[in-house]
Amino acid sequence: MLTLPDIWEAKKRLIGRIHKTETVYSTSLSTMRKTGIYLKTENLQKTGSFKVRGAFNKILTLPQEKRERGVIAFSSGNHGQAVAYAAGNIGIPATVVMPEWAVINKVNAAKGYGARVILHGKNSIEIEEKGMEIREKEGLELVHPFEDPMVMAGQGTLGLEVLESLPDVDTVFVAIGGGGLISGTALAIKSIYPKVKIVGVEPEGSCSMLLSRLAGKVVETDRVDTQADGLACKRPGELTFATVEKYVDEIITVTEDEIMDTLKLMLGRTKLLVEPAGAASLAGLLSEKVPLGDKNVAVLSGGNCGFSVLGTSLLEG
Amino acid sequence: MLTLPDIWEAKKRLIGRIHKTETVYSTSLSTMRKTGIYLKTENLQKTGSFKVRGAFNKILTLPQEKRERGVIAFSSGNHGQAVAYAAGNIGIPATVVMPEWAVINKVNAAKGYGARVILHGKNSIEIEEKGMEIREKEGLELVHPFEDPMVMAGQGTLGLEVLESLPDVDTVFVAIGGGGLISGTALAIKSIYPKVKIVGVEPEGSCSMLLSRLAGKVVETDRVDTQADGLACKRPGELTFATVEKYVDEIITVTEDEIMDTLKLMLGRTKLLVEPAGAASLAGLLSEKVPLGDKNVAVLSGGNCGFSVLGTSLLEG
Repeated sequence: MLTLPDIWEAKKRLIGRIHKTETVYSTSLSTMRKTGIYLKTENLQKTGSFKVRGAFNKILTLPQEKRERGVIAFSSGNHGQAVAYAAGNIGIPATVVMPEWAVINKVNAAKGYGARVILHGKNSIEIEEKGMEIREKEGLELVHPFEDPMVMAGQGTLGLEVLESLPDVDTVFVAIGGGGLISGTALAIKSIYPKVKIVGVEPEGSCSMLLSRLAGKVVETDRVDTQADGLACKRPGELTFATVEKYVDEIITVTEDEIMDTLKLMLGRTKLLVEPAGAASLAGLLSEKVPLGDKNVAVLSGGNCGFSVLGTSLLEG
Repeated sequence: MLTLPDIWEAKKRLIGRIHKTETVYSTSLSTMRKTGIYLKTENLQKTGSFKVRGAFNKILTLPQEKRERGVIAFSSGNHGQAVAYAAGNIGIPATVVMPEWAVINKVNAAKGYGARVILHGKNSIEIEEKGMEIREKEGLELVHPFEDPMVMAGQGTLGLEVLESLPDVDTVFVAIGGGGLISGTALAIKSIYPKVKIVGVEPEGSCSMLLSRLAGKVVETDRVDTQADGLACKRPGELTFATVEKYVDEIITVTEDEIMDTLKLMLGRTKLLVEPAGAASLAGLLSEKVPLGDKNVAVLSGGNCGFSVLGTSLLEG
């Protein structure tokens, strides 16, 4: 099981390789809610999301011979960018398998970091089949998006930064997809300062972690219906589920409207772009489903928002 | 005429009242242009633009009896917000005259800062007539958006901050509307370090400062055709024109497409929202019309971008 020293080791490994993002006090949101609201601006992280923390930590812990053969990821999203970036940064080969319909920007970004991009299949099952085939044939190391202690340890460095910036924080809201970010973050924070309340936030239309918590075990759901593509997840990991069960105080859900309204509020008030998955934590904080303390943090986990999604939402008013 | 000590006094006056915004190195833009590109993130300033610097400095230099009677501004845009904010912050009455068609967000923002908002007229002439009438009747002090040494001195504090953050800066790009920001900024920087090149940027469709420079005197133009509403200006001031003539090395123009493409580039790469007027300086820097040095700054002067303008532009691709 993941431990605090694993996260500290990850922190040391990542020094100089990624940004230490700021935890910024928001005057307008704090005034609105009459308590202190802080934003962990991880949307300004390298590659535009927290995923680079875990991917980079995982790759840096691989033995030399595995590094030389290279790594592989299956992802059309932030995890794929993160693996491409980390591998490119230390000069090892990376393969990213994306669906045939992947947006050209994301394909080009991964290629720009030096990765080989393979476009194959229409859905996650087809992508994974193809990826596993290549992985086996070429002896590549798989970097999983969440179900890996070294990935979780990397994400946990975000929790350490929140405590460093705001030692007297009361509540931290973190969105849940597969559960990698909240696992690492909750473990880091609770291990150092157990009084902090950790709240997980899932979209109403994609809440496999909450369903698993209610069932008392990992369950799979067919309903993955959200604009927050970064949080779409049919089934959390066993490791992430166990960590969430141990360290996360509450899991709440937010609607699609709450997510998109929060995204627009952020853009208008703070001039910061977040993606829908990155707005979910703040949507949860603002929803008043959980009592706030004096100092409350929402982790803006990513900023890679598609322009068509954003444009459509802005014109809807 | 404005002097460097005036700007230094303004800096002292504004301590703790406004943000000292960061001058941020952009890895992606620097890689793209193969030289150092830095962004002065004034879009993250209080009220969302640099205007608060000048308005606040002006108001703080008013004698007590004038403060008590209150101030007035004619503006549907950033200057109106800035005057409302500064006056509200020190508890003096402010009146902002806006056109009848002013967007409700801006009306509400000014009211939220405590200002009285008067909606009158359809264009700048009608607004000004109404404003002058109220000003005279109530004995209010006019805060001009640019043609005032104390306003220019306030804007000049931005120049000091650029030098503090980047003492070896080579080139600074600043957009020009009425010329207040570039006057103060150029005077501050050139007075301390004359080797820095200052480049003014105007929209092709609204370039009264360039036309004035070419004519050798202040001239008025009827053509004010730009989406960068913050830069729409028929006629620069006499003071700002004289200061620009003395301290600004070059004035270049950018097209509407260059402005909007830069706005979208910023949003996608840096996750920062700028308004069209705030993107113009960077559009000028990226246009390659002026040779760059090793360290080049674009002043992102504001972030108050209308959602309909932004949404439409994003969906156009």
